[in-house]
Amino acid sequence: MVDALKNTPPHQVVIVGGGFGGLYTAKALAKAKVNVTLIDKRNFHLFQPLLYQVATGTLSPADISSPLRAVLSKSKNTKVLLGEVSDIDPQAQKVILGDEAIAYDTLIVATGAKHSYFGKDDWEDFAPGLKTVEDAIEMRRRIFTAFEAAEKETDPEKRRAWLTFVIVGGGPTGVELAGAIAELAYQTLKEDFRNIDTTETTILLLEGMDRVLPPFAPELSQAAEESLQNLGVVVQTKTLVTNIENDVVTLKQGDVVRETAAKTVLWAAGVKASPMGKVLAERTGAQCDRAGRIIVEPDLSINGHPNIFVIGDLANFSHQNDKPLPGVAPVAMQEGEYVAQLIQQRLKGNTLPQFAYSDRGSLAMIGQNSAVVDLGFIKLKGFFAWLFWLLIHIYFLIEFDNKLVVMLQWTWNYLTRNRGARLITGQESLSQVGNDKINSYYTPAENRQPLNV
Amino acid sequence: MVDALKNTPPHQVVIVGGGFGGLYTAKALAKAKVNVTLIDKRNFHLFQPLLYQVATGTLSPADISSPLRAVLSKSKNTKVLLGEVSDIDPQAQKVILGDEAIAYDTLIVATGAKHSYFGKDDWEDFAPGLKTVEDAIEMRRRIFTAFEAAEKETDPEKRRAWLTFVIVGGGPTGVELAGAIAELAYQTLKEDFRNIDTTETTILLLEGMDRVLPPFAPELSQAAEESLQNLGVVVQTKTLVTNIENDVVTLKQGDVVRETAAKTVLWAAGVKASPMGKVLAERTGAQCDRAGRIIVEPDLSINGHPNIFVIGDLANFSHQNDKPLPGVAPVAMQEGEYVAQLIQQRLKGNTLPQFAYSDRGSLAMIGQNSAVVDLGFIKLKGFFAWLFWLLIHIYFLIEFDNKLVVMLQWTWNYLTRNRGARLITGQESLSQVGNDKINSYYTPAENRQPLNV
Repeated sequence: MVDALKNTPPHQVVIVGGGFGGLYTAKALAKAKVNVTLIDKRNFHLFQPLLYQVATGTLSPADISSPLRAVLSKSKNTKVLLGEVSDIDPQAQKVILGDEAIAYDTLIVATGAKHSYFGKDDWEDFAPGLKTVEDAIEMRRRIFTAFEAAEKETDPEKRRAWLTFVIVGGGPTGVELAGAIAELAYQTLKEDFRNIDTTETTILLLEGMDRVLPPFAPELSQAAEESLQNLGVVVQTKTLVTNIENDVVTLKQGDVVRETAAKTVLWAAGVKASPMGKVLAERTGAQCDRAGRIIVEPDLSINGHPNIFVIGDLANFSHQNDKPLPGVAPVAMQEGEYVAQLIQQRLKGNTLPQFAYSDRGSLAMIGQNSAVVDLGFIKLKGFFAWLFWLLIHIYFLIEFDNKLVVMLQWTWNYLTRNRGARLITGQESLSQVGNDKINSYYTPAENRQPLNV
Repeated sequence: MVDALKNTPPHQVVIVGGGFGGLYTAKALAKAKVNVTLIDKRNFHLFQPLLYQVATGTLSPADISSPLRAVLSKSKNTKVLLGEVSDIDPQAQKVILGDEAIAYDTLIVATGAKHSYFGKDDWEDFAPGLKTVEDAIEMRRRIFTAFEAAEKETDPEKRRAWLTFVIVGGGPTGVELAGAIAELAYQTLKEDFRNIDTTETTILLLEGMDRVLPPFAPELSQAAEESLQNLGVVVQTKTLVTNIENDVVTLKQGDVVRETAAKTVLWAAGVKASPMGKVLAERTGAQCDRAGRIIVEPDLSINGHPNIFVIGDLANFSHQNDKPLPGVAPVAMQEGEYVAQLIQQRLKGNTLPQFAYSDRGSLAMIGQNSAVVDLGFIKLKGFFAWLFWLLIHIYFLIEFDNKLVVMLQWTWNYLTRNRGARLITGQESLSQVGNDKINSYYTPAENRQPLNV
């Protein structure tokens, strides 16, 4: 038996995507008797929950990124490949990477989601979303450029448009962005300009539902809204965006339609599946939901393809409640760990009960000293919620990479209300405020970073 | 007298460039009874001596950048303008910034230098220099992409070209880059790849003179060369580069000409004046040297224009020795402080003796635990030189911005030999290793960041 095993070629696991789902699968397989190949377009894992801190100048991209090779360097059964998977061949059990075909016994697709403009893709130029490092740098460039442009603008109306920030979407990302921009305008930048008063900045947070943070308990939504208002954010619920053009956002509140002049619009609303979802559906006949996510079986595999799993934001898992699990990191992490375990059990001829997500709660940062935490059995707001938020994020952030420095940076920024990472960089960073015409303020989306696959 | 002074409009000082020269001038004028306007293309001051640490993945750009507005926020007489000066009108005493003309009584031009390819400007695509944050990100992208490409390459010869790094120029930047890449290849990345052995990397440091670090004492050059060799760097002195093309560097050593296949060539050789030098020369009749630097008077003003000063890397000050002062941060800082003092003395009807640079020494980092320091009266090498280098750089780095975190990051990286900031980012970061053809490895220089003005 031992000798027979020795002669079996090792089981080949291929994971596409190095986000929370893919990386946790790989980590959980580190000591399994399988060969693992992790493929990602980027050479680093990104801690997306803190991306808004890059967008608002508190942290640097490297502070929330871990090189995939470094994270997996001790997993000797694991190979990292940098590249973009273009196709999948379930019959031949291969994924296509450039000119190469990589064979798998088990395939895990964890390519995540990108933001969606509900069919209004031309809005993307005016209202960037926040999924990649490059997205965050673009947001950071726009936010800080807007203050610079306002400082130069002599026309009061145009100046007001530069000092108006509209955030579309009142989920955690929208709330966190709005809170951070309010702190920037009302605290950090207050003394830095000579012609403008940054405390005259307007920050509009728009949400289509009747409250911000819809997944949270209503009393926490209420607390979040109050904290945001205390920070200076104008929260508008039951508000739909019907158009976004160069300088104007059109809003619909009930039957009332109005226009707001705003140079900076940030998108924190919808998401849709990454393009790999479509490829996968075509090749396997898997069903997709409206957002393009793959509807998976109770064990996270694709119907009829028990050796292909879909996890994380790309998966629609609806076997636990009547609605799909949310697209958050803990879901992806638990799914990855489940699949890793299932693969090992199957190799032993066993199986596992269906996947079950253990929801440990939701949390969202509003600003310094203020957050909301919903653990189900306990609900926190204010300072203790903030501290809890901080500790949880640090715990997961340092897991791979010992990013102690990030914790110290935060502590420091908290004590000094400092935001040192407010660089305006990138190819458009030079000319946009060089003259009165801010030509290249709106970088076309195609010149920005497409999303991670 | 007091009343008369009250009615005099304040003296207008305009500073173009927020590098060491311009920023130190502005800081030194913070309490003077003048109005100061500091103009820069970028919204941050860059601590260029540590840029090589960004290029090699140890620090993030924000770690070595300080927002100009934050640095000068307490200088209530000082206004920061983000923009690019296109022209100067010495008769009308104005600088042109887009559509605006900004009046000055005293003008300080401190726009620095950019790298020079000695007339071979087409080399820039293949051999990027290191002056801006974008340059550093481009170098970082190339260095880490080269290892990724080598990991994928099956042809041994091509793989060797990916694992060959040529650094042109044996001054401090070249030495520091070579040392850092050697540490990367032989230590940090050693365990991270599965197909390649990164300790087979070749790092060539080329210098035209007979020793590296020519401005240092010969025994320190010798010590630096030995340390570099211990790290694994191949040092080739008396070596000229006669051509750089896609994958091949042509070298001339005496009468011997040879070619080296290398995918990654980094330029740390010549510099020339920033374009503002030419504008200034045309408008004022100032003399330029061969590198385009403005030849200044003993008080750093332009001949015939006592109210226009040129400082820092753009200035050729040859009144102290028979040769111009070197283009290093301490020269620019002292020049800035001198001009600030001279302006204040002139307003009182006084003057100052001519500028004199007080040379406190030179230092260069080779690798962890190893540096060379030449203070004239004392010469250090090895660990104590390294410690001295670290302390000096931290001292100046935290001056504006309390970047304690950077110190902690260094300490941490030193203890763990970790390089967490090794992100491959930017517009070309996706496709370049997606297939066998690494099409966009060489980003055309025009798509990179032009230099700071």
